[in-house]
Amino acid sequence: MSRFRVDLRSDTVSVPSLGMRNAMAHADVGDDVFGEDPTVNALEERVARMLGFERAVFMPSGTMSNGVAVRVLAEPGDEVICGSRSHVYIYEGAQAALNAGIQLHRIDERPEGLPDPADMDSALARSDDIHFAPRRLICLENTHNTLGGRVIPRERLDAVKTVAEAHGARLFLDGARLWHAAVALRCDIAELCEGFSMVTVCFSKGLGCPVGSVLAGGAENVDRARWFRKRHGGGMRQAGILAAACHYALDHNLKRLERTHTWAKTLARAAAASPILEADPENVESNIVLVRSPGISSESVVATLGTLGIGCLTMGPSSLRLVTHLSLADRDVRYAADILATFGG
Amino acid sequence: MSRFRVDLRSDTVSVPSLGMRNAMAHADVGDDVFGEDPTVNALEERVARMLGFERAVFMPSGTMSNGVAVRVLAEPGDEVICGSRSHVYIYEGAQAALNAGIQLHRIDERPEGLPDPADMDSALARSDDIHFAPRRLICLENTHNTLGGRVIPRERLDAVKTVAEAHGARLFLDGARLWHAAVALRCDIAELCEGFSMVTVCFSKGLGCPVGSVLAGGAENVDRARWFRKRHGGGMRQAGILAAACHYALDHNLKRLERTHTWAKTLARAAAASPILEADPENVESNIVLVRSPGISSESVVATLGTLGIGCLTMGPSSLRLVTHLSLADRDVRYAADILATFGG
Amino acid sequence: MSRFRVDLRSDTVSVPSLGMRNAMAHADVGDDVFGEDPTVNALEERVARMLGFERAVFMPSGTMSNGVAVRVLAEPGDEVICGSRSHVYIYEGAQAALNAGIQLHRIDERPEGLPDPADMDSALARSDDIHFAPRRLICLENTHNTLGGRVIPRERLDAVKTVAEAHGARLFLDGARLWHAAVALRCDIAELCEGFSMVTVCFSKGLGCPVGSVLAGGAENVDRARWFRKRHGGGMRQAGILAAACHYALDHNLKRLERTHTWAKTLARAAAASPILEADPENVESNIVLVRSPGISSESVVATLGTLGIGCLTMGPSSLRLVTHLSLADRDVRYAADILATFGG
Amino acid sequence: MSRFRVDLRSDTVSVPSLGMRNAMAHADVGDDVFGEDPTVNALEERVARMLGFERAVFMPSGTMSNGVAVRVLAEPGDEVICGSRSHVYIYEGAQAALNAGIQLHRIDERPEGLPDPADMDSALARSDDIHFAPRRLICLENTHNTLGGRVIPRERLDAVKTVAEAHGARLFLDGARLWHAAVALRCDIAELCEGFSMVTVCFSKGLGCPVGSVLAGGAENVDRARWFRKRHGGGMRQAGILAAACHYALDHNLKRLERTHTWAKTLARAAAASPILEADPENVESNIVLVRSPGISSESVVATLGTLGIGCLTMGPSSLRLVTHLSLADRDVRYAADILATFGG
Repeated sequence: MSRFRVDLRSDTVSVPSLGMRNAMAHADVGDDVFGEDPTVNALEERVARMLGFERAVFMPSGTMSNGVAVRVLAEPGDEVICGSRSHVYIYEGAQAALNAGIQLHRIDERPEGLPDPADMDSALARSDDIHFAPRRLICLENTHNTLGGRVIPRERLDAVKTVAEAHGARLFLDGARLWHAAVALRCDIAELCEGFSMVTVCFSKGLGCPVGSVLAGGAENVDRARWFRKRHGGGMRQAGILAAACHYALDHNLKRLERTHTWAKTLARAAAASPILEADPENVESNIVLVRSPGISSESVVATLGTLGIGCLTMGPSSLRLVTHLSLADRDVRYAADILATFGG
Repeated sequence: MSRFRVDLRSDTVSVPSLGMRNAMAHADVGDDVFGEDPTVNALEERVARMLGFERAVFMPSGTMSNGVAVRVLAEPGDEVICGSRSHVYIYEGAQAALNAGIQLHRIDERPEGLPDPADMDSALARSDDIHFAPRRLICLENTHNTLGGRVIPRERLDAVKTVAEAHGARLFLDGARLWHAAVALRCDIAELCEGFSMVTVCFSKGLGCPVGSVLAGGAENVDRARWFRKRHGGGMRQAGILAAACHYALDHNLKRLERTHTWAKTLARAAAASPILEADPENVESNIVLVRSPGISSESVVATLGTLGIGCLTMGPSSLRLVTHLSLADRDVRYAADILATFGG
Repeated sequence: MSRFRVDLRSDTVSVPSLGMRNAMAHADVGDDVFGEDPTVNALEERVARMLGFERAVFMPSGTMSNGVAVRVLAEPGDEVICGSRSHVYIYEGAQAALNAGIQLHRIDERPEGLPDPADMDSALARSDDIHFAPRRLICLENTHNTLGGRVIPRERLDAVKTVAEAHGARLFLDGARLWHAAVALRCDIAELCEGFSMVTVCFSKGLGCPVGSVLAGGAENVDRARWFRKRHGGGMRQAGILAAACHYALDHNLKRLERTHTWAKTLARAAAASPILEADPENVESNIVLVRSPGISSESVVATLGTLGIGCLTMGPSSLRLVTHLSLADRDVRYAADILATFGG
Repeated sequence: MSRFRVDLRSDTVSVPSLGMRNAMAHADVGDDVFGEDPTVNALEERVARMLGFERAVFMPSGTMSNGVAVRVLAEPGDEVICGSRSHVYIYEGAQAALNAGIQLHRIDERPEGLPDPADMDSALARSDDIHFAPRRLICLENTHNTLGGRVIPRERLDAVKTVAEAHGARLFLDGARLWHAAVALRCDIAELCEGFSMVTVCFSKGLGCPVGSVLAGGAENVDRARWFRKRHGGGMRQAGILAAACHYALDHNLKRLERTHTWAKTLARAAAASPILEADPENVESNIVLVRSPGISSESVVATLGTLGIGCLTMGPSSLRLVTHLSLADRDVRYAADILATFGG
């Protein structure tokens, strides 16, 4: 279905499997705007429980989850702190300003994906002078997409929580790929949500569902999120069709994520072996591989790989990204690895 | 799947049929955020062609279609003219103000669902004094939900177009149930879209799909709508699963809408026969029936009908609404009609 | 200084007197953004005390006072209830939607300037269904500009307060010309502020100052207003120059307002005597006169009066407005009255 | 009038001189909302001409000028590029996001006050992918407040213009203290405005007026700015009182600015002579001096200086700012210099 034989552009290109399609076809549904879709209700309860929150709400996209969460947890006229290379800063079209009147204040991440807690501390440590925009929310991203699927170490999360508490700031987690972090750390996903006011997780990326994201949090915050979801136009009717795929993914695909990490390592090692590409296999912690092309433009690398049936995306003038996902098979990864290892040779 | 034996609360409660589920299960899909979902692309082209526009964009809800269309066709700080009892005014949570900085200026509709063109004319006829908010967009609704599914007569549409042209104003049509108007008028649906800059149609109401709405218009406006859709969080990945249901509905359900109109007439006649309810069968033009309960609160009527397995909604202290749809069968309508005809007896 | 010999277009055209200019020239000033302008501070305290509130904040215009008050007392996504012919609805360029994401829900006023409390009651009496915009603020205007300077009777205010309390709604008063209401009712102005969360009063209209408005309320609300004032760009430095004029007006001009009411009566009687104009002297309660021109366009009346040196404004196709103010003298009013009384003869 | 004997906290603390007060007292005024204030009109024409633009509009504050200019030159959902330490980024309370739906994208300045044109180039050089916020406006600040009143060299401005042109981006200049740049460079102020779409200049800072800022640009942009000014609540009535002070400042104070630069040099040299303070007299190009206090908190330095009657502000944990202005006299500067030179000794 993709135009590439091996599509590594994103895990969002993964398509529903037969089993998942079957689950959707047989979903028990109702009108979710009336709160009567049993499959959606069960999914919201299930994800809330998994993440350790009171409630959750199903959303049509991770972008809506993030946009709504920021509205719930901050006020118009606030500055919300986020990473300079985070999804909310780069890829969401200034939705926080456009819809919610919120300015994002970016802080550079360390290579491992998290801004230095000391930088957050100084960003939060300013007076309530009327000239300044209030800062009371920090957004983190785990795993961190543009830095190569890096997993935030738990002890570093603790440092952030300490800073946030000291300033009375809230924490929001863009956990679109948090499933991968839990797999990489071999821990309960709820442990990675501790201390956050709200967390969003996606189903249409690594988990292979067609559509869907869930935003979880305390009861009051999720009720407010539901209010904003309506105003974004995210209230869907028999959304149980989509939620059924999410249930299927939790039942069957979660356990398959580790394989995508192994594949990513394989691809990174292959790229590192190439005469002209560079990669750091030891930094590949989940399903994303960043590859550098120091002597050649990444666009031409992407184009050449494309002619060989391998899809990937540029991330900068000499940087490209490969993402593994559940619609790949071992032979796809082998094929791509063979080409990468000899690329430029 | 509904908690009512005969659920007449809304046509949004209709659930996908087996055939539609089968179509979804076999949909050819891709990543629609990359523009690569063939089923979505085909649906957008198909609906654009049906409505007589250059382009169209698939949306997760009619509320998002309306919210985005208003942003595309008006500016922050504008006043957009709409009906006092229109969906955009009443049921969309002030989204135009909240997200887009647009004030809605309502004008009372005549009983047939359209504000008097003379009222629109005088609303548009004010100077460009700096104190005034610019008015350059009129929103209409066809069929008109809260006035009982009324169909706007074509000659009255012409009068509105004349007014709009005279003032250089644009027209937007909330055609969530426009399919019903075309069926009622036995005309090509494109004829009902002439003169409008953009039109939205819904698939999750009368057409029985689980999720989906399409916003159609000129190329530039639809491209801009796609830009706003992203910022509302309406960009979905393998949305072809949902679009496949829409194709199925156009193939199989469109021709079945007329039956829902006949059912609505039947219910209206039954209510009119009741000792204590009132209805105007001659005003039932599509699939919605307004029933009055002059001597008793509509809430108690709704409650009593509920205990008998009939779901409906109050629309005011002594007014209730019944909506027919494709998940009903003849026997459901007969059952409800029998109860209505003798209600209060 | 006006281009009219007798300028009745608005009380905003009044210019500072010599005494007021002298007061400005000798004002003790400081940097008000640092909170150090003694004349501004004294004015804020003085007006707060006069109106019966804890605090007040000086603003560059009544439009900013109203725009900020609505932001303080309502939330983005709310519907704020106001009169159909109120200043906030008609003359403020949709600022509530544009800047604050707030939709204004208008209710028709009775001829005396106040919407029917029963209409407000039903507007407030809807469920908290997620489709609806919350309604929790009512804006009133006293005296009512476009209805002819009408003064809201105190017993009718009580009825509004009862409605607001029943629904937990707040009240905001656009009291740009509240000084006139207090004069007309011969009461303490604070009595007219009871029950309101915030009240704005203007100095650049009837009181004859060049610039300035004050927004008063509880401490927390006024602090929040100050925060928004900064974000509207309303923080001025040595604003004591302007505030000195306001002090002067409170000392000297307040007691002169009654004369402007007498003048307005005189003008109304004159217009009523005209062969072709109509007016209702018994409805003239303050300094504004509405004149009807049933057989001739108001534009041509305004133009003819203009050629005779009398400035006034149209308020509709056959309606015009005359406003008296402190830059007029008895002879100006006599001159205008003579012309009006024989107008069309 | 200040609580400090020598108030160096800001040039905004300067108070109107007797001559300026006299000019205000005798101003010829009218209702500026009707466009009839001759003194305002003359000021707008005069400043437009001085800066080399078609039109200009008088504003109550520099914050409103900046806020309105950004709205005129960019769209909701845009990212506007500005310096990390610019006034628009730090001191305007996120007004661009709050009121206008615009995200500010900051770029670090070089020490001389201008972000590196290469950084602007790469910030502008991204595709029009739907995920990205459009970037089409760059805001510069000249002189640069928080970097110590630095004057942007003209050749560096040319480099920025080249970058902007290459990407079709517009330029906006926050010239609150542009008067100082023209004095420092001994050039016509209009030369410093070339290539900018709009420029704002302030009168309540170095020029010693109580209130006022002017925003200049092309006719269409300024008309649009006037529209937004109304919606911010910045339309004032007899604003000629304030504008008269601005005329006086252009006539009398402009030529006195150079003295404030000399004073600033004197203070910088004194601070550099101190045993514990540091300053760079060679970097003092206008009326602002940054002083470092490496071994002691700037708060304690500010407090100690305060007890000696010298007012100044902290700009960071070990950084403080001194600003000279027209309400100082030679003896004030000598007093402060003496104390600074021996501070900590």
